[in-house]
Amino acid sequence: MPSRPQPTSPLSVRRGEIWRTAAEMINAQGYDATSVNDIARALGMTKAGLYHYISGKEALLYEIMSFGMDQTEIAVVTPARAIADPAVRLREIVMRHACLVMRTRGSMTQLVHEVRRLPQHARKKIDRRMRVYFDLIRDTLAELKTAGRLRDVDVTVATFSLLGMIMWLPRWYRRGGSLSADAVAADLADIALGGLLRPPRHRTRHNRGPQPRRLRLLKADNPR
Amino acid sequence: MPSRPQPTSPLSVRRGEIWRTAAEMINAQGYDATSVNDIARALGMTKAGLYHYISGKEALLYEIMSFGMDQTEIAVVTPARAIADPAVRLREIVMRHACLVMRTRGSMTQLVHEVRRLPQHARKKIDRRMRVYFDLIRDTLAELKTAGRLRDVDVTVATFSLLGMIMWLPRWYRRGGSLSADAVAADLADIALGGLLRPPRHRTRHNRGPQPRRLRLLKADNPR
Repeated sequence: MPSRPQPTSPLSVRRGEIWRTAAEMINAQGYDATSVNDIARALGMTKAGLYHYISGKEALLYEIMSFGMDQTEIAVVTPARAIADPAVRLREIVMRHACLVMRTRGSMTQLVHEVRRLPQHARKKIDRRMRVYFDLIRDTLAELKTAGRLRDVDVTVATFSLLGMIMWLPRWYRRGGSLSADAVAADLADIALGGLLRPPRHRTRHNRGPQPRRLRLLKADNPR
Repeated sequence: MPSRPQPTSPLSVRRGEIWRTAAEMINAQGYDATSVNDIARALGMTKAGLYHYISGKEALLYEIMSFGMDQTEIAVVTPARAIADPAVRLREIVMRHACLVMRTRGSMTQLVHEVRRLPQHARKKIDRRMRVYFDLIRDTLAELKTAGRLRDVDVTVATFSLLGMIMWLPRWYRRGGSLSADAVAADLADIALGGLLRPPRHRTRHNRGPQPRRLRLLKADNPR
């Protein structure tokens, strides 16, 4: 497998195009029905030309998935890690991941299931990288739970529910339709945070803000 | 295509086994890589025996999807329609659909994407049935929106977010693990309703319930 160049180099940009086109074709017609020949033709390359970038179909699938994980790390994980407040971090994760999925038409997201096609050692590497991302969300939710800010739900169920909302986007979101990606990402974040964080009235007594002023006046001014 | 018998007849039960086994095999190894021969072998039948129940692989895929829609109608749609309050109905939809997906190990759910393999007329029929279910959720959310009980989110985004949470279950939920299906369904419903319904403090003035009794007393008894 060729070594990976810097993400902004021309070689890397060309590879990005290849991975995205291949991912879209595999999503549309299935892994088995997509040949290296088909992918080369769609890219306007010869099969030999494509083999300059890839070493085979399985290796291509691995490269596509690694590319997807690279993108998630750059666009979601690294910026999110820089945020101290777990609720703000959670919103940022949802917004950024949703935008990435919609921007790339979910070409990588939909391939997640095809990890089963990879040989054991390649599958393990991808699984490990997915786990790092999963843990970022899970740890953020656990932090909110410790602070009494999470609803009374299981942290694992909460993590997968949030991922499901995002990972389902490619099944329905169409670019250029009536809904902008930014608006969809903001709605997703509102639904996710609303669904996971306790509303103020459910907070335990020590988490409540001060009592409303008029009620306090009532007690002081009206002794019955 | 053979006509469909009553759901409880022995023929129908045998067909249910066939659809489920075939669905699991297609999920595990892909549609192209699964032959009618493989499915017959997994069921302990001859290929000729299996052809007593099916007329080909495409027809089989259509039958599996129709079976999945039948199950959704019986277990989710019909009981949900009987519920007048839209919030109670919404909880029931989430709980019932999530339980169905976990009980059947998502064998039907994961096949949703394969609808693209069907010939045009068959695909249209399945799409129409899916649309009926989608509309049940969307109409329920629209009803909540009219009543001022929905968060300020787009109803279509909300419907797909809710479906995403449920449809993602087969990707992670394992029966016999530490989480019971009932507990997961209840958490999913809490997250979905928490994420979609306005918390009381966010309701607009005309949608608020009666003012707390003491505050009204304050206004009557304390004229300043």
